[in-house]
Amino acid sequence: MDKESLYRKISLENDNKMIMIILDGLGGLPVNQKTELETAKKSNLNQLASESELGLALPISMGITPGSGPAHLALFGYNPLRYSIGRGILEALGVGIKVEKDDIAIRGNFATQENGIITDRRAGRISSKKNREIIAYLDEKINWIEDVKIKLFSGEEHRFVLLLRGGGLSDDVTDADPEVTDKPILYSKAKSPQAERTAKILNKFIIRVTEELSGQKPVNTCLLRGTARYPSIPSMQELFRLKTAAIASYPMYRGLAQLVGMDILDTGSTIREEVKTLKKHYTEYNFFFIHIKKTDSYGEDGDFNNKVKTIEEFDKILPEILKLNPQTLVITSDHSTPSTMKSHSWHPNPLLIKSPYNRLNPWKPESFSETECARGVLGRFYSIDILPLMMAHALKFKKYGA
Amino acid sequence: MDKESLYRKISLENDNKMIMIILDGLGGLPVNQKTELETAKKSNLNQLASESELGLALPISMGITPGSGPAHLALFGYNPLRYSIGRGILEALGVGIKVEKDDIAIRGNFATQENGIITDRRAGRISSKKNREIIAYLDEKINWIEDVKIKLFSGEEHRFVLLLRGGGLSDDVTDADPEVTDKPILYSKAKSPQAERTAKILNKFIIRVTEELSGQKPVNTCLLRGTARYPSIPSMQELFRLKTAAIASYPMYRGLAQLVGMDILDTGSTIREEVKTLKKHYTEYNFFFIHIKKTDSYGEDGDFNNKVKTIEEFDKILPEILKLNPQTLVITSDHSTPSTMKSHSWHPNPLLIKSPYNRLNPWKPESFSETECARGVLGRFYSIDILPLMMAHALKFKKYGA
Repeated sequence: MDKESLYRKISLENDNKMIMIILDGLGGLPVNQKTELETAKKSNLNQLASESELGLALPISMGITPGSGPAHLALFGYNPLRYSIGRGILEALGVGIKVEKDDIAIRGNFATQENGIITDRRAGRISSKKNREIIAYLDEKINWIEDVKIKLFSGEEHRFVLLLRGGGLSDDVTDADPEVTDKPILYSKAKSPQAERTAKILNKFIIRVTEELSGQKPVNTCLLRGTARYPSIPSMQELFRLKTAAIASYPMYRGLAQLVGMDILDTGSTIREEVKTLKKHYTEYNFFFIHIKKTDSYGEDGDFNNKVKTIEEFDKILPEILKLNPQTLVITSDHSTPSTMKSHSWHPNPLLIKSPYNRLNPWKPESFSETECARGVLGRFYSIDILPLMMAHALKFKKYGA
Repeated sequence: MDKESLYRKISLENDNKMIMIILDGLGGLPVNQKTELETAKKSNLNQLASESELGLALPISMGITPGSGPAHLALFGYNPLRYSIGRGILEALGVGIKVEKDDIAIRGNFATQENGIITDRRAGRISSKKNREIIAYLDEKINWIEDVKIKLFSGEEHRFVLLLRGGGLSDDVTDADPEVTDKPILYSKAKSPQAERTAKILNKFIIRVTEELSGQKPVNTCLLRGTARYPSIPSMQELFRLKTAAIASYPMYRGLAQLVGMDILDTGSTIREEVKTLKKHYTEYNFFFIHIKKTDSYGEDGDFNNKVKTIEEFDKILPEILKLNPQTLVITSDHSTPSTMKSHSWHPNPLLIKSPYNRLNPWKPESFSETECARGVLGRFYSIDILPLMMAHALKFKKYGA
């Protein structure tokens, strides 16, 4: 029996509340012997850590730096090497498009060609405003190709998303992108017979765009990449019998939560507004995923101080969450984003879990930090095990076997 | 997707240097409360440990004592339960034979028979000198069996290696060894139809040897065991895009490194000479495997004091390696060889990894030892994850997923 079958078998419904708070990119590396988390003044988090089980969670596997897609799948209890979310779908989620089951999503670049030769793969990185104008124009001109509905969405600068809606399509096609300049417009090829029609639709789209924008500068053609179908992932309701809600302000994370069947709650974007949303809907669900983005954004910017301040901001609001007294509370991250690296990293995530069924740590932890979590009672484990552990602490798993 | 496919997908080439130093059989058990590693005076290693991430690496799985073959496969990033190196091949590597792709290697024993009944499976453990004389004689007499080239190599005492070179051979045959005395000479049987010819060649070889040595004492026949083909293992270049070199003086480890595609550097056998070899070739590769044998040999001999001295000898030379300032340095072992056990053991290996991206350990480690590593920030993990972790620290892995 694989673990997914096990979880289906032993999950039960009850009203106990579980809250998973993800401080995106929380983990860091030391500067003057202290990480961002260790530098932050955070008496509430430290107090909570002293009463919680601590550990370090590996997102995927030793040494693997995850993107947001696989890192969140693991947090939601899904094997991130079994389920993958194609680039086109991720891009669509990031732009905030509501993707439907049979949809095919593709990342597009507006580009420049001369006599059929690509001279700029990004059309001089046009402004997002210009992008929206072109998309509005094309959206009026191109509605259908054969019996496939064409939907277009602006991204930042030269990027856009193309959505194909209509049955019988496949994502088993090559990229229509020469990858370097001074090469001819490249068309997509089917990698299997059942993808022939999709490749044809994509290529007709490129030809239509090139015709419609003929004579324009710098945007007069497009490249299409990362063709992906909506992934087939069982919902958290199916797998864990949970009534799930996501509180996240960034489109990407709202989209990822939607992929596993969560209700996406309307929310403001500050931590305070997210907590307000939690309180408002607290009686309606028994699992809440709360996503806080700024820790990661500041990490990516290399802004150690503002990452510290974001942690401090969260710490101030934490008592309001604790007042709700959830049965199981987890505070952790999807991956580390050390300010010193200005990027995601492979280092495991500090984690605390609080419930009425906690064991004590080998030492009384003085703070919530990477180093304290490294000697916590939970040790090092994989992020994919966080949700099952929460289920257990919320008494939502039956005994396995007699 | 399995992990090997993942590694292929995310590995990238850069010039950052990685050095993996294997002190064979390093881990031990305490005598008067201290292991060999804890007894050794080693200020350089201790200083390095205080600045490194520490942990314990399990060679295969809890409780499993590995041989050198699987233990090194794991160190090189290969699943030691997926890839296996047949006994005949290991024996050939140990004797220093350059085995080629389609070769079949077999472990041989010289033995004594009377009227076709085996009376001594080791022919009274003849001297290695005598062995070489017999091999020289047979090597002249037996060159081909059918169209298969026969190659013979002396081992220690009664042991030799038989190599069959020629296409279309199989290793799917039974051992030609009665395993006890007072039984008739046993011939090999094919376990599948495509191995019929190989079994026939092996049996013709036994008959030829028995004829050629007819009337001799004590060696007048042979047993053949562990028939094995050259294993099909993707190279480290394929899997991790590394330019790899091995610095090892013992044939077995040179052979194991060759199996995964490493260049085998000419080197003297002392630690000092191995480090000299490292310096000489430092610009040519981005991954170095350095194998130090004596820690294991003294462990196997039950010689606690000389194992301690070998560690101290390494400690003195360590600064010369540190001066090279590799991006990622790992010091660990393939398996433990406690002097008190005089054998390999299942205990995990103390490990340190040093790079610019280290987290701090929960305690400032005072020394490099089994007990300090047991409370290190890396916790306990599997040896197969060491190389991926080194790849991450050397920034040789791209992000997985967006």
